[in-house]
Amino acid sequence: MTNVDLQRERAGATISSEDFAEWWAGGRAALHKRRALEKLFIEDADLVDPQHTSLMSHKALYEYTIAKACKFLSKLRRWHAANAHSKVDAQQSAIATLYGFRMLLAGPLGTALFQQNFPLRLHFSMFLPTLLGQSTEEQQREWFDRAWRMDGIIGTYAQTELGHGTFIRGLETRADYDVQSEEFILNTPTLTAYKWWPGGLGHSANMVIVMAQLYIKGKHHGLHPFLVRIRNAETHLPDPGVDVGEIGPKLGVNGVNNGFLGLKNVRIPRTQMLMKNAQVRPNGRFVKGPEPLLIYGTMVFVRVMIVRDVSFCLLQAATIATRYSAVRRQSPIAPDQPEPQILDHTTQQAKLFPQIAKGIYFRIAADVVWVMYQHVVKELDAGQRRNLPELHALSCCLKAYCSSESEEGVEVLRKACGGHGYLSSSNFQQIYGTVTAACTYEGENTVLLLQTARFLLKQYVEGLKRKVLPHSVRYLRNATRPKWGKNIELPMLTALLEFAATESIRTLYEYQRQQRKLLKSEQLVANKAGIRLTQVATLHARAFLARTALEETEKFCKQLKPVLADVLTQLAELFVLELCLSSLGHILTTYPLNARQVDQLQARYEHLLANLRVNAVAVVDGFDFNDRVLGSTLGCYDGRVYERLMAEARKSPLNQESVNSTFHTHLKPLMQAKL
Amino acid sequence: MTNVDLQRERAGATISSEDFAEWWAGGRAALHKRRALEKLFIEDADLVDPQHTSLMSHKALYEYTIAKACKFLSKLRRWHAANAHSKVDAQQSAIATLYGFRMLLAGPLGTALFQQNFPLRLHFSMFLPTLLGQSTEEQQREWFDRAWRMDGIIGTYAQTELGHGTFIRGLETRADYDVQSEEFILNTPTLTAYKWWPGGLGHSANMVIVMAQLYIKGKHHGLHPFLVRIRNAETHLPDPGVDVGEIGPKLGVNGVNNGFLGLKNVRIPRTQMLMKNAQVRPNGRFVKGPEPLLIYGTMVFVRVMIVRDVSFCLLQAATIATRYSAVRRQSPIAPDQPEPQILDHTTQQAKLFPQIAKGIYFRIAADVVWVMYQHVVKELDAGQRRNLPELHALSCCLKAYCSSESEEGVEVLRKACGGHGYLSSSNFQQIYGTVTAACTYEGENTVLLLQTARFLLKQYVEGLKRKVLPHSVRYLRNATRPKWGKNIELPMLTALLEFAATESIRTLYEYQRQQRKLLKSEQLVANKAGIRLTQVATLHARAFLARTALEETEKFCKQLKPVLADVLTQLAELFVLELCLSSLGHILTTYPLNARQVDQLQARYEHLLANLRVNAVAVVDGFDFNDRVLGSTLGCYDGRVYERLMAEARKSPLNQESVNSTFHTHLKPLMQAKL
Repeated sequence: MTNVDLQRERAGATISSEDFAEWWAGGRAALHKRRALEKLFIEDADLVDPQHTSLMSHKALYEYTIAKACKFLSKLRRWHAANAHSKVDAQQSAIATLYGFRMLLAGPLGTALFQQNFPLRLHFSMFLPTLLGQSTEEQQREWFDRAWRMDGIIGTYAQTELGHGTFIRGLETRADYDVQSEEFILNTPTLTAYKWWPGGLGHSANMVIVMAQLYIKGKHHGLHPFLVRIRNAETHLPDPGVDVGEIGPKLGVNGVNNGFLGLKNVRIPRTQMLMKNAQVRPNGRFVKGPEPLLIYGTMVFVRVMIVRDVSFCLLQAATIATRYSAVRRQSPIAPDQPEPQILDHTTQQAKLFPQIAKGIYFRIAADVVWVMYQHVVKELDAGQRRNLPELHALSCCLKAYCSSESEEGVEVLRKACGGHGYLSSSNFQQIYGTVTAACTYEGENTVLLLQTARFLLKQYVEGLKRKVLPHSVRYLRNATRPKWGKNIELPMLTALLEFAATESIRTLYEYQRQQRKLLKSEQLVANKAGIRLTQVATLHARAFLARTALEETEKFCKQLKPVLADVLTQLAELFVLELCLSSLGHILTTYPLNARQVDQLQARYEHLLANLRVNAVAVVDGFDFNDRVLGSTLGCYDGRVYERLMAEARKSPLNQESVNSTFHTHLKPLMQAKL
Repeated sequence: MTNVDLQRERAGATISSEDFAEWWAGGRAALHKRRALEKLFIEDADLVDPQHTSLMSHKALYEYTIAKACKFLSKLRRWHAANAHSKVDAQQSAIATLYGFRMLLAGPLGTALFQQNFPLRLHFSMFLPTLLGQSTEEQQREWFDRAWRMDGIIGTYAQTELGHGTFIRGLETRADYDVQSEEFILNTPTLTAYKWWPGGLGHSANMVIVMAQLYIKGKHHGLHPFLVRIRNAETHLPDPGVDVGEIGPKLGVNGVNNGFLGLKNVRIPRTQMLMKNAQVRPNGRFVKGPEPLLIYGTMVFVRVMIVRDVSFCLLQAATIATRYSAVRRQSPIAPDQPEPQILDHTTQQAKLFPQIAKGIYFRIAADVVWVMYQHVVKELDAGQRRNLPELHALSCCLKAYCSSESEEGVEVLRKACGGHGYLSSSNFQQIYGTVTAACTYEGENTVLLLQTARFLLKQYVEGLKRKVLPHSVRYLRNATRPKWGKNIELPMLTALLEFAATESIRTLYEYQRQQRKLLKSEQLVANKAGIRLTQVATLHARAFLARTALEETEKFCKQLKPVLADVLTQLAELFVLELCLSSLGHILTTYPLNARQVDQLQARYEHLLANLRVNAVAVVDGFDFNDRVLGSTLGCYDGRVYERLMAEARKSPLNQESVNSTFHTHLKPLMQAKL
């Protein structure tokens, strides 16, 4: 039976959570298709964990996860064979399937089954796409189909090294071409050159795409991808010269089997350098390829996906915390009343609702940039790279901003559940482990913000020259002092953010001009301005998010039932207000609002929280997370929080014995010792 | 051999880290005493973990931790017996020893051995102190000495319930007095009444001080402590009517054996209600005790200790990240130069140095409040309670502010170590698990901020009446508009913060006056103003921290060598600037600085970061953390980061086998499946 407070919340909402779910899923058909797929896998008893993975040892977790992953893949293959559409174009279809597979694993189904712990993920998300994108047609014929079927091949992708990350020119692994044998000789010259981090590398993969510095007759020709077998297909024993293992326990994703790899004189045929771009001829002649624009495109793609992933994590956490807040009662508001649902405390609303709004508008922003991405890829195919820098800059700051905000948000939500949020069975721990990793991988956040800032400064200078600026930075040229109206309106708030961003960039530009007179190089100037650079990139991200929320909400509202449109508008306004209040220092530095005006913003924010209260549960229901996706004792649809907490605790292996063996071996002797 | 970059850092520092260490430890004698004690225990091979605890299963971790804790306690007892001073007063000495023991466990030694995972901690930190503080003399004679010697007794303290935390009047566990048998009958009437969380309760403790609602002939007489045996001293089997177990894995402190407890008609003699305050006579007459002021005192004590604990965690993390940043090289600053130490990046300095300053000045603030506490306890003993409310309010907002900032800081520092910070072997995970728990226990942070805010509003009103205000809020009456001088001076920054706090409280006071006209009760007014209340409490905490940093630094500098005094002054200024920049929105709302003035603050901040660069490693060396205290592959004194990362990875049980068994059972069949 569902908790009565949750029942009342659902009965009292003004919106239908099913309407919300349809909109959020992109239509009724998409919603039903997803539910059917989830049902098929989630209700399979073979794929239900017998115990919470946090109870397992590191080794047992790996072994359990591999077993489950293989069961899942077998079932997915059968399903795919039965449901795949007729082949149109092998490669297009493969890309689409891989893309779909990535979404599947990072999305609800993968989360329900693996909580982001799928150990063969890199085979699909990096190994196969790199084979597709960087092989010649001949290489594809030789490898792709076999790899796709995992016929003797489980692959991964190795770039990062123990001592080298973001700055890829610093990578040390080398591949020397031996003209005599027509082979590459791969080596890990130092400890810091060990490959370090690739998922599945430890004990799962037997082939690796290794990024290495190419040398021909001692001459360096840059970084290239090499296809290297590391374990025997039959025995799985590491090949000679291969030193491979896993890197040990982590804050999260412990089933993923991240590994290290050292190579000592490992030889591969010349044909195993992936040569779609650059090539090495048998005689050792190096042929430079065209600039691999699509690789930049891939980086953009991955970052947009990350924005989607982190918004997904944030909304999982928000759903758990919101449902819990409707069930949990604590601290009377009025002295003669019983303890209220904690959802009634304004301070609790301030922890929950802004995160809901963020989760929604981060994904919507990702959708918008995704459309831009598809457009730019078409242009790149036609040799046109004009819009790549804008897209790149945007994907950098959004990845950084959204991952960092989502990470913080998940922790705010966890702590909003008090002590129970600290229990592994609440699942916040796993969600956090997943979301916080996104702040570091695929471009560390600070580094990404610096990249965006460089683009912004360049555009600002172009603007000074009255050149036409790309769409997302057009405001840099045209930003005008916003006019404070009587009521707080979304466009005015967006204008405030854009004005603050523009003014901060202007100030930064002036600051760097002065610093150039004092410092020896442009690089020293940039380093000294580092903090300010990250600040302007953050302001730009906020301005873009605010404008996008505003524009997209307007479009959506035209198609939605009025009550739903109202709630979405409230969420958009809360989101934009939250962006403004987070930037208040910067806004007030550039646009002196008086105390009364700041108070108006604050009051409006509080007003929105109070208005959203009645629909909070309906909205999170509308994300339509299956209970298994949430994986939480605190967040299930039926709200039976205390029953589940107790049931989960009773499953602990320690609780299967009345007396633990250490009583006899240690505690009793301690209590009997004579002092 | 020590890493060459670290060698160079140490050679280049202007201060001596040994001078810093002596100051930080409170003198040379204290430093050497601590080092000797640490050496004695840390170098004991019996107390070294054979493998990283993150590799163990939940059950194995508990069993391992109990075994180690018992070894440690035996050794500590021997040491204590050999080193204890002659007994002056049994109770005073016990308090001092317990206090010392608590410090020991939360401090360097306990951290080095248990990383905050000492499963019998509550026996010493709650069970024994409650016995001392709430028993009659007769009860103490019966129980204390036995409990102290752990003679058949391992205790814990049970207050929080599954459904009830902060609001203790809501607790449901009841103790009904039975006049006939002169016994209390203890019951857990509902699922939500189960005791939940006490450390050691699961499988370690055999006696519990249970907080329960007292009923005599059906009449309720409030919450009282009852001493209840739950497990047989000989067999450790749960007594009849006792349902006890552990609550399962958590984000941290998994050796601590947090448990649940249900009681069904468990009878204890009348003499096992702890009756120092209220009493129940054999005939059932309830005698109300004096108001237990000392209990408030104890809450203050615990919160001051928490501020010390979290600053300790923050400085552990800061030491690890700073040393790593001196060793790690990445991303050229100048194009023709090799990759620099990441410590040279301004953005990296901005992640590290403010955390160092916070850790230092949080502990200094705790020391100051500790002196106030001792003063107030003396007054309370003399029946004088005048200064308790101020102390209480201060301890609330400092606990909340410092724990929340430290928690955030630890994560900033972890992420500043990139991917390697995500590895369990970096130890950030355990430090975070410890520090974030402090945001929730002993008063959830939001609740504590609301308490401080209520005090501030009361004092503001007193101030309007021109009454004399307590020292820490005197500024509320006298705050004057600060005068912006030519240079940025610490007193001016402090005044800015105090002015912002005062103005925000004034605005809040006016806001609540208006809301009272619209809302029905004072409670609804307070709920509506919740966000603003937490904001003013935060501003007050910042203002207090800034003034304390300023005053204490001035005192310290008189005794320190000039170079050390310089560095400490830089750190104080960085700390206060950080407080101001974090409050910029509030400051600008109340005191309109222009863009040039804000820029001055920012430039000064950057200038301080650059100046502190040369001494960063020397300062963290000066905290004098033993490598085992840091417990980190990234933070050891010798800086052999990469060697340790690899060595730790190689220890993983998965790496003891070339081929994992799941290859044969799962991966190979998957690769051979016909598609």
